[in-house]
Amino acid sequence: MDEAPQSIQGLVCPVPLPHKDQIVMGHGSGGTMSHDLIQRVFLSTFDNSILSAGNDAGSCLINAHTRLAISTDSHVVSPLIFPGGDIGRLAVCGTVNDVSMLGAQPLFISAGFILEEGLEVTILETIVASMGQAAREAGVQIVAGDTKVVQKGKGDGLYINTCGIGLIREGLTIGGEHSQAGDLVILSGPVGDHGIAVLAARGELGFETDITSDVAPLNSLVQSMLDASQRIHVLRDPTRGGLATSLNEIARQSRASIVIDERSIPVRKAVSAACEILGFDPLYVANEGKLIVIAHPDDVQKILGAMRSHPLGTDAVVIGQVEGSPAGRVLMKTRIGSTRVVDMLSGEMLPRIC
Amino acid sequence: MDEAPQSIQGLVCPVPLPHKDQIVMGHGSGGTMSHDLIQRVFLSTFDNSILSAGNDAGSCLINAHTRLAISTDSHVVSPLIFPGGDIGRLAVCGTVNDVSMLGAQPLFISAGFILEEGLEVTILETIVASMGQAAREAGVQIVAGDTKVVQKGKGDGLYINTCGIGLIREGLTIGGEHSQAGDLVILSGPVGDHGIAVLAARGELGFETDITSDVAPLNSLVQSMLDASQRIHVLRDPTRGGLATSLNEIARQSRASIVIDERSIPVRKAVSAACEILGFDPLYVANEGKLIVIAHPDDVQKILGAMRSHPLGTDAVVIGQVEGSPAGRVLMKTRIGSTRVVDMLSGEMLPRIC
Repeated sequence: MDEAPQSIQGLVCPVPLPHKDQIVMGHGSGGTMSHDLIQRVFLSTFDNSILSAGNDAGSCLINAHTRLAISTDSHVVSPLIFPGGDIGRLAVCGTVNDVSMLGAQPLFISAGFILEEGLEVTILETIVASMGQAAREAGVQIVAGDTKVVQKGKGDGLYINTCGIGLIREGLTIGGEHSQAGDLVILSGPVGDHGIAVLAARGELGFETDITSDVAPLNSLVQSMLDASQRIHVLRDPTRGGLATSLNEIARQSRASIVIDERSIPVRKAVSAACEILGFDPLYVANEGKLIVIAHPDDVQKILGAMRSHPLGTDAVVIGQVEGSPAGRVLMKTRIGSTRVVDMLSGEMLPRIC
Repeated sequence: MDEAPQSIQGLVCPVPLPHKDQIVMGHGSGGTMSHDLIQRVFLSTFDNSILSAGNDAGSCLINAHTRLAISTDSHVVSPLIFPGGDIGRLAVCGTVNDVSMLGAQPLFISAGFILEEGLEVTILETIVASMGQAAREAGVQIVAGDTKVVQKGKGDGLYINTCGIGLIREGLTIGGEHSQAGDLVILSGPVGDHGIAVLAARGELGFETDITSDVAPLNSLVQSMLDASQRIHVLRDPTRGGLATSLNEIARQSRASIVIDERSIPVRKAVSAACEILGFDPLYVANEGKLIVIAHPDDVQKILGAMRSHPLGTDAVVIGQVEGSPAGRVLMKTRIGSTRVVDMLSGEMLPRIC
């Protein structure tokens, strides 16, 4: 982490932020700085309702018979290979998952590679093999590609951009704007594994850990949930910015309040311990194989049943519910019985985590 | 151009190439080194017929009613802004054009941004505005986006990846594999403008020039051609590697011979002069607003008529024809009356041109 010191969640920034009209690492955090930049620069220019919906994928009508989910991600994770995965697996799963969060079945993926001069071809081959394996797991085809090379010192080994195209079942309307007061909030499993695994791979933990990234394709889990219930209103995978940031996005989109119970949120002991030492809150640490489900309360048992019968949803649990107000806010009942506001990530916590 | 000396078309490489198991700049040339890397690393792993077809876009059947063209490009051009365009306009047009080369109507684009810490936000705003303008010209919507930030010294200001999704008219089968002996080869206008304009912007010409990039969205030109003829067999935009490399790709895909006439190939005087001084062959210099058409000879006058009534095809001209043998070869009748083989670009001529 060689960037200038930034604000860390809950701490006051000890030094001034860089000039406000330059890009800083915090603009890539997925938190408030990212949202502000996206609003200021991108949404105001690329003015269209699909992009402005603010979901993990755009919902695009192609013709009377066909609605697509389209999503893209550039992957700049450092290091390229980490416990439980690598940039190739991450690129495929990240895009498969974003497409799945509209309830779509991902079918096709494109892959653009920016290679730094000097990258060993064997490393590239390892990562590409891992992409192929992840694509087979997810049942998607990589149908378009591009390779560019930049001079040494103008990249960092390898960046991968993926775009995913999926087919949305007819009649399905899932999105962050659809949560309703009374809905329950389900989390598919423990949070924070991916972020801590990448930090460990950088040697930044200062101690040994056996935490591995949770990076996995969630599309088959989603399809089994959709088979179990037609009242799933929201799906989201809490990546950069973590669970707290994703819940805030949903609360804003739905103009609702989300109230979660701290005691119900699963966190592995090793992740919890690492976060305590590093001063991180696991609610803000990235995941790459977890999802949030918000659904009608009457269907929650059916959904939990479907999730728990799937290898990627065995630890699924209800963590909270949607309420009418305060609109756009996430509140948490803490272990000691109080209630506190849970904000979106501000500044930069873990750069280049995905 | 701070990379190690490389072979230049027509010259013997003066120093040994870097270790063969590392990525070198030539792997990004779009010529034989790119093709070898793609074959060795990507095609063998992502083994599917859509990708292996080797066209500018993948032809993907979504359901009984819908066939999509999907294409991606990462853009790493240096400098970010050049005469006639910038990386934003290039990203949109490059992807619109690749999708159009299957005869598809491009509808949606995704955009992934890799920003280097320290990039001025005003430069980003300028480029994003230019993307918006190019998208409006092409009639496409930017429906998915992503923003990542890398530390200073791990990027070069801004890289943009775009993926395009287009709808292929029912019954249309256009692709590099479909040229037939007897077909004629049309070029939409003079070659080499983009490459020389970018070189000029780098200050590498050593003299003044008013050449501007030809970067433009070709989809409306393509649609007017498709309205004029149902016997267009191949469309291709000769970008990296230039006209010579694109024709070689088509000759290989179709297992045919393509014979072109040097005197018929339009090159602006200023481009020709710049190439002569630099030792470049304009046939290998990148274009971003030109296309090659290969069609049944009986339809060529209709197609030329449609092209010449369009602002981007006013200089369209027949440059050659397809023959049965020698299969996979491009031959050129030279100005002095001899015939020579025109190979694919080998090594690297102009790095980071798109």
